[in-house]
This record gives sequence, structure tokens and C-alpha cells, in this order.
Amino acid sequence: MIVGELINIRNQDIKQAVLKRDQKYLQKIAREQMYAGAHYIDVNCGTQVEDEIEVMEWLVNTIQEVAQIPLCLSSPDAHVIKAGLKLVKYGQPMINAITAEKERFTQMIPLISQYKPKVIALCVDDCGIPRTAFDRMIIVAKLFKGLKDAGVTEEDIYFDPLVQPISVNISAASDVIETLHMISREYPKVHKICDLSSVSYGLPNEKLLNVLFLAQAISVGLDSYFLKPDDKQMMGAMIAATALSGKDYYCMEYLKAYHNGLYEHQYQ
Amino acid sequence: MIVGELINIRNQDIKQAVLKRDQKYLQKIAREQMYAGAHYIDVNCGTQVEDEIEVMEWLVNTIQEVAQIPLCLSSPDAHVIKAGLKLVKYGQPMINAITAEKERFTQMIPLISQYKPKVIALCVDDCGIPRTAFDRMIIVAKLFKGLKDAGVTEEDIYFDPLVQPISVNISAASDVIETLHMISREYPKVHKICDLSSVSYGLPNEKLLNVLFLAQAISVGLDSYFLKPDDKQMMGAMIAATALSGKDYYCMEYLKAYHNGLYEHQYQ
Repeated sequence: MIVGELINIRNQDIKQAVLKRDQKYLQKIAREQMYAGAHYIDVNCGTQVEDEIEVMEWLVNTIQEVAQIPLCLSSPDAHVIKAGLKLVKYGQPMINAITAEKERFTQMIPLISQYKPKVIALCVDDCGIPRTAFDRMIIVAKLFKGLKDAGVTEEDIYFDPLVQPISVNISAASDVIETLHMISREYPKVHKICDLSSVSYGLPNEKLLNVLFLAQAISVGLDSYFLKPDDKQMMGAMIAATALSGKDYYCMEYLKAYHNGLYEHQYQ
Repeated sequence: MIVGELINIRNQDIKQAVLKRDQKYLQKIAREQMYAGAHYIDVNCGTQVEDEIEVMEWLVNTIQEVAQIPLCLSSPDAHVIKAGLKLVKYGQPMINAITAEKERFTQMIPLISQYKPKVIALCVDDCGIPRTAFDRMIIVAKLFKGLKDAGVTEEDIYFDPLVQPISVNISAASDVIETLHMISREYPKVHKICDLSSVSYGLPNEKLLNVLFLAQAISVGLDSYFLKPDDKQMMGAMIAATALSGKDYYCMEYLKAYHNGLYEHQYQ
């Protein structure tokens, strides 16, 4: 499953468009992501604007005017997510993210019980960002139990192991690979999603690192993605890596992508 | 560890050069591989020429005239390998490959005891090519015991899970990934090597599949490679994937490769 990640206030063009309330621009981005293959559109109003609740409401309405597609509502603030959930009209929404931080967890649970969204569960607790795969699995177990107790089905849980830059922590990527592998083994029904591009932060030739890390993550069970759906290199790598992971019968999706020109000018 | 794979009789240019006994051409290829970073040079006289023993002897002597580097001697025939082993002068040779096929195993063991080479152990037995990762692990266990009993140290064993095309078997690649993962866990001291490029046989845009499969294999412990050392895309992917796998302190090798231009014109 692909979550189109372009509508994120951390992107300066998006931020300006939001501040100017430029509906046309944002609607164009939303439509383009949908046509390029996104199953969800991310609505991330971050923490850098004032009045995030109003921004979330305006964004949800703006996007839904042109795209009849479910939304992923991204915020650390349950009030902001709630404002979005009240307005979503199409399909089952997704929220990004619950964590094992006590206060955040407690605030998110009532929303989850009421609106039954898909839930991204991020491997963070009150001790901060876990260092090892083992530390991540302790948080995974805690989140799994808490979400199950709140009535969330396993198929609606999307674990995000939290990717950090390998320029900062040598085992940042390999810990995520190990975590994904353990989640796949211990919780076969849940999904796994990552914001992969953080891995290459601070290094040159980021795209190659992102593409290879995507392929590695897919081989240990990553099945959902924050991606720019117009990014042929990442989309192409995703489809190729899925074929390598034994999930593409007769390589049909790979061959279709090839014949549609997805691999033009790449690795000929 | 990189084994330069260019001197292989299955390559038509090499075959012609061997048939014409064109020393200059083969010596040029040998030198280029050494300078491009190969730690071993493969000498693969295949099964397509007559008098393979004489070809092996001639190739070993030809290469050693210009490259003071250890050789990997590739043949299914113990007599051919023995002819090469008698002549190698530099470092510890490598033989490719022993299998768990009874006759082949029995013929190779005395050579191994006598010459103490590094040994590539290919996951094949008298029942043929194993289908699943589990079948491969049964052969791995058999080979491990047999080689240990013959006095081979674990560090001199290189398991090759045997890569097949995903166009023929949907789980060909994922079975290899799973096998590498299990070998890494159960036999932490042995090495793992693959001839990766078979994975993409019969599909378009082979290079992308090879690059992504290489990255996946590295993330589960592949540490030795049959590569064309002049292939910047594969070499670049190997170095980048090694950085992602937590084995490149401060990403020094990756940054060095970048500054040396290895990633020019790739995924900018």
C-alpha cells in the first residue's frame, strides 16, 4: 500500500501553499498522487504552523473536493487528528501515529475506538527513540497489546520501526531491517510501513541509498510505503523488489511496469 | 571479498581468446580486474571446451604471469581443479565448488585436505537443486559437517545457496534471502557467496534486479561476491548496501567511493 507523502508542511512549497490557502495547487498535487497510484494521501500539517487544527480541517476539505480517496492524517497531536477524522468522507482513514508514549497513547485511543481507522504505530516510548532492534520489539509488544485491547484488528495495525540516518548511527538501517524481520515472524498479520528516506540524511547520492534500503526492507516484510508516487525510481524499485520477494506471480506487475516505461533511463 | 568473474568460458569473447590461446587479451582482463578491486580472479574453464585440464593449466599460468593474486578455480570436475591447484603460486587458492553430490564430494575432499584452499560449497545434492530454503539448509548442514570433518576451518567455508531465475520460480530470490539469513544465524563464522546475476535471467532491465537483489542479500549476511569489478553499478551498490548493513564506520568507504566518482551518473 502506497501513501502519497507529498502534502507535508515540512516541504516548503506545500507550506507556502497552505499559508496562502492556495487550494488549486494543493488539489493538483492530491490528484496527481492519486493518478500516479497512491492508495492513501497523507495530510501532514506538522508542528510548524499556528492553528494546526484549522489547517488540518482546511486541508482535508480541500483534498476531498477533488480526490475521492482515503486520507492518512499525520500529527503528533490527537486534537489535530480528531479534527481531520471528523471530516473524512472516503474509505477507512489512517492515522499517523500512535506511539507508546503514555500521554500520546492515552489521547489517541478514544479516537481509534470511535473512528476505527488504520493505525500507524511508531516505535517510540517515553524513553525516546529505541537504539536496538530488541528495544524496538519491546515497544512493538507494548503497542500491539494496547491496540488489541482497544479493539483494533491486527490487519489495521501498521508498525513503523522508525528509521534514522546511518550517518548518525551506523546500525540505524540494519536495526530497522532486523526489527521488520522480527515483526514479520512474530506478528504475521500486521503491516509494516516506513518513512525510508531518513536513512540517507546527510549523505551524498541519497536516492541510491533510499532505493537499496527500500529493497532490503521489502525482503523482510515491509508492505506499505510513504512514497512520492511520481518518483519513478522509488516506484520502480518497489515493484522490482516485490518481484524479488516472491510476491509477484509470473513477474506480471514487474513486466507491466516495464512495458509502461517505468524503467526507462534506469540501469539499462 | 570480491571474486572477479570475467574469465569465464561461458563468455564468448573469453572462449574465443582461450581457443586462440590469446595470452595478451586474457592477461589484460586479469590485470584490469585486479586493479579494479578484485581480491580473487576466477578461472572458469567450464565444460564447453575439450581438454579442460590443459586449458585450466594454461589459464593459471597465463594469469599468474601478470597478476600476483590468488585464484578461484571453478569447475565441477575435481581433476580440472587439481590441475589448477598444482600450479597456483600466490596466496590461498579458492575452489568452486564442492557440492553434497556424493561422487563429487568424495573426489574433492582429498584436494581440500592436500591444498587447504578456501572452499565454495554449493547447495546441491544428488536430489538436484533444492526448492526451498529449508531444503537448502539440510544440504548446508551436510556440507558443513563433511568439510569440518575434512579439517576445513569455518572461516574457509563459503556457502553458495544457488541462485535461480525468478522468471522460472517465483520464490527463487526470497528462498536465497531466507537461506542466507539462516546460515548467518546458525553458522556465524562461515562466509556466504552468490552468483547473483542468475536471478534476473529472462527478464528485462536485469541490472536493476541484480542491484536490488545484491542489496537484499547483503542485508542478511552475504559477504563475498562474484562480480565484474569494472561494473560501477554493482560495485557502487555493494558499497552502499554494506553501509546500510551497519558495517561501514562513519560511512567512510561509501564516502570514499562517492568522492572517487563511483556514483557519477547513477541516481542523482
